[in-house]
Amino acid sequence: MDFQHVFARRTSRMKASEIRELLKLLDQPGIISFAGGIPDASYFPAEQFGAAYQAALSAETSATALQYSISEGYKPLRQWLAKEMQKLGVDCTVDNIMITSGSQQALDYLGKMLLSPGDTALINWPTYLGALGAFNAYEPRYDKLSINGNRSAADFAAAAEAEGGRVKFAYLSADFANPTGETVDQRGRENLIDLADELDCLIIEDGAYQSLRYDGEVIPPILALEIARKGSIEDCRTVYCGSFSKTLSPGLRIGWVCGAMPLISQMVLLKQAGDLHVSTINQMAINTVAETHFDQHVATLHSVYSVRRDAMLAALEEMMPKGVSWTKPEGGMFVWITLPAHLEANEVFKRALETEKVAFVPGQAFFADGTGKNTMRLAFSCADEATIREGIRRLSSVIKGLL
Amino acid sequence: MDFQHVFARRTSRMKASEIRELLKLLDQPGIISFAGGIPDASYFPAEQFGAAYQAALSAETSATALQYSISEGYKPLRQWLAKEMQKLGVDCTVDNIMITSGSQQALDYLGKMLLSPGDTALINWPTYLGALGAFNAYEPRYDKLSINGNRSAADFAAAAEAEGGRVKFAYLSADFANPTGETVDQRGRENLIDLADELDCLIIEDGAYQSLRYDGEVIPPILALEIARKGSIEDCRTVYCGSFSKTLSPGLRIGWVCGAMPLISQMVLLKQAGDLHVSTINQMAINTVAETHFDQHVATLHSVYSVRRDAMLAALEEMMPKGVSWTKPEGGMFVWITLPAHLEANEVFKRALETEKVAFVPGQAFFADGTGKNTMRLAFSCADEATIREGIRRLSSVIKGLL
Repeated sequence: MDFQHVFARRTSRMKASEIRELLKLLDQPGIISFAGGIPDASYFPAEQFGAAYQAALSAETSATALQYSISEGYKPLRQWLAKEMQKLGVDCTVDNIMITSGSQQALDYLGKMLLSPGDTALINWPTYLGALGAFNAYEPRYDKLSINGNRSAADFAAAAEAEGGRVKFAYLSADFANPTGETVDQRGRENLIDLADELDCLIIEDGAYQSLRYDGEVIPPILALEIARKGSIEDCRTVYCGSFSKTLSPGLRIGWVCGAMPLISQMVLLKQAGDLHVSTINQMAINTVAETHFDQHVATLHSVYSVRRDAMLAALEEMMPKGVSWTKPEGGMFVWITLPAHLEANEVFKRALETEKVAFVPGQAFFADGTGKNTMRLAFSCADEATIREGIRRLSSVIKGLL
Repeated sequence: MDFQHVFARRTSRMKASEIRELLKLLDQPGIISFAGGIPDASYFPAEQFGAAYQAALSAETSATALQYSISEGYKPLRQWLAKEMQKLGVDCTVDNIMITSGSQQALDYLGKMLLSPGDTALINWPTYLGALGAFNAYEPRYDKLSINGNRSAADFAAAAEAEGGRVKFAYLSADFANPTGETVDQRGRENLIDLADELDCLIIEDGAYQSLRYDGEVIPPILALEIARKGSIEDCRTVYCGSFSKTLSPGLRIGWVCGAMPLISQMVLLKQAGDLHVSTINQMAINTVAETHFDQHVATLHSVYSVRRDAMLAALEEMMPKGVSWTKPEGGMFVWITLPAHLEANEVFKRALETEKVAFVPGQAFFADGTGKNTMRLAFSCADEATIREGIRRLSSVIKGLL
């Protein structure tokens, strides 16, 4: 049976993630993979989660843990998150926070809340692939975000209007972004607030990697800078999306949004219509682990991942041929490589997988306009130092062979 | 700050659930509530879940339980569900099943997959409020489903076309529907398949209460009847939505969709873009409990809820004044009451809450066109027999006072 004629128009923009398809190729022994941007499973706090689930299922709380709960999310968890946000300079209350099924759901719901077909979303070239996936369903036009002032707000607005919509938001990850690993400096963040004020649009700040800073100076979240400037979160246009997926566990699917109350109230309506609420027992369990082990666990991750990042940067420096450049991330999980313009990352990928059994993600998928053919994303989170060194050796030899 | 101008057009149709607002009024001692259509928390299999979470977090599987997983869902759980669906006459494989965050998310994603603005959804008057909430976001036109042949397919199609769209699906709950408690007989189900074939649209079969039949003859799901007629699920236009929320626990947020592979593949793309996947650990835990305790637990619920249903029907028969009628459900959680036409359920609700401390849900919210002012939904799932009897006594006295 052919179902195309019953599908909504929006489905024509929903395609399988290229990374997901690539990852299927990696299911063979002996592969060194820098492809998946996921946490190293050997460091999950499994014991602490075991105790937390037992506590949630005790006689006193099991009826709560297994029952329906409110769409806003479990209040003690929102209280803990409000305190964490305050530590980052975001003065807020539980009413500024809603729990989501990972930060991916926050992006989906924000797209759904903000984008009518033809509206404009400002994004980076390249940007997080999952954000493109989430937003695509709401049929936006994309325009290339610029925070260094070389395009005026009036110019962005006119281009959006010419396509029949308006600029609804700018989306970015300010810290150790997926895929580039790069961080926006404080001046860039301030410029972005100026731009959003002029455009009267929202800022969606994706803080998925925010906790994973290994060195360099902490820069306040955009939301914190906007509150500092305007006095109250209720006067701010930035929505911060957070996630436990890169810290405690992605398997529980828990993230959050933090913003002005009218935005959170509207998000709660979307949550109610979308899937009622996030798993009650998971919210209780992650709250217990967060309250007792978050800082300690993040410190462990810093020590593990920073050593791996250092190993990758050192190996790249030592082995990569001239003409290849890469980012030097201060945190997160990714190094972004730019090849000489004539070299295609897809070609490197095929050769590397076939002849050297080493994998990564070609960068083109992260560009809304299909450019970036000579770019590659390497994740350093899931391999130890020796493996990283060996993987970069293999990759360098493939690239040298193609130059 | 006013954010209305950045919201997408679709948000104008997303309102707070009236039931949710009502439930806030019930947070006072001494209230007898027939309002919430939720399972009785004292029967959750907490001990079995405790063991299941411990098993998931054992050394062998904790890295899987806490890690990202595939958008289709945990394969052993899909295998168990495929066998359960086969028992209902639905010949299918794991590839016909995707796991969702409760069946509410299945409804949201099906609306997103099928409805362009102005398309028509055929629904019952009244219907499940959560379905209206999910579909509203995709700006459909609603038409009143009729399966007794008093409106032709051509008539439905012409009405849809006149509004600039087409009929994309018929949605219904065939067994002990929320809110009426009514069941569609086999002939009605066959008629619906004929209608959908003529309209070339899908059928969304909400099976949330399917396991909760207390007496009467089992009627195969619409999907099973369609497979019997057409030979293979791949030739069927029915998508079945199931849920563990009324059986094992709503707190884990686990439901599923079952249908032809091209429909499931498209749903997987929506899931990937929407929130990646359902909590891995929850899928593992519910699979363990389902494999070992599902039938036994459902048998317990049958014995508990059927006694409560009987108590409610007996009390209504004994105490309600003439002119009031109600459904006689063979399962589920709800009895639907129709008052004399001049009596408004909202009036009864206010009086009942104030003077007699008894609560229910006025039926109007379940009608897409705002009719049904003289209807009420009573849930019998959460009160014991004596409380039900006392609640109906109070309610009858309020209604008598208003007649």
